Parts: sequence; structure tokens; C-alpha cells
Amino acid sequence: MIRAEVRVMLKTGVLDPQGQATRKALANLGFDDVDAVRQGKLIVLDLDTDDRSAAEAEARAMAEKLLANPVIEDFSVELVDA
Amino acid sequence: MIRAEVRVMLKTGVLDPQGQATRKALANLGFDDVDAVRQGKLIVLDLDTDDRSAAEAEARAMAEKLLANPVIEDFSVELVDA
Repeated sequence: MIRAEVRVMLKTGVLDPQGQATRKALANLGFDDVDAVRQGKLIVLDLDTDDRSAAEAEARAMAEKLLANPVIEDFSVELVDA
Repeated sequence: MIRAEVRVMLKTGVLDPQGQATRKALANLGFDDVDAVRQGKLIVLDLDTDDRSAAEAEARAMAEKLLANPVIEDFSVELVDA
């Protein structure tokens, strides 16, 4: 079993209203040295394989087809020891 | 400026319907060797400080107070080079 983590973040320049709302809420709580907040998704996949390169390729294919929206989001894939 | 990444994941044992839906959608696309999917949040904070230990403590405080729900979620904080 190989665990892959897919990080999905909005592309630079794409408005992130969720991050802006979080920044304002943090400021209201007194955390006023926060310059910027961006919020993304972290998708942890347990893959039933022992082939690390195949696992990485598969996770990338999943991100391209389903997990990320390539118009507005970037993604990266990392294999971790489960 | 120090960048802190807060990872927020549902605790083990807490039902993750979003992850389950993603797993089913992946299976429908032909990715049938996915044992489990868990979906979490990744919050990237740009902090206006140069003190790494203060930045980490502040990010932890933000996670405890706002970013994570301690009843059902775990979080971890990592400082990254911006």
C-alpha cells in the first residue's frame, strides 16, 4: 500500500474568497500580522500497489481528471510512508 | 515574512463522506485500486514576522482557535520557505 498526498491550491492570481474571509476572521481574533491566507485541499489516497512510480503517475492522473480544476487550480503529488 | 502551512484532517474514526464520495467517483473513472480517500484542508498563512518559533506558536494558536475543529479534526503546522 502506498499513500499519496495530492495538494490542490488555487492558482496565483485567482481570487480566494475563503482565504480572505479566514484572514479577516483571524484579524478579528487579534491575529493581526497575517499578510495573506490561501486555502486549499489536501487529498490523501491509499493506493493498493507497491510500485511507487505507478502510484505517483496514477495520483497525477486522478488529480488531472477529478481532484483539481486545471482552469483555476494547481496541484502537486507527494508519496508518503503510510 | 514566514510562511506557515496548517494541515487540517478529520480524526481517525470520524466519518469522511467527502472522501468516500471522492473514492466512488474515482472508481467510476476506472481508478479501482484506491483503498481509501481522506480529504482535508491546507491553509497557507503568510505571517509578518521573522521569528520562526513565534510564527509556529502563532499558527498553532490560530489552528486551535479558528482553523480546526478540535472535536473532530487534527492539525499540524509546518513552516516553509516562502
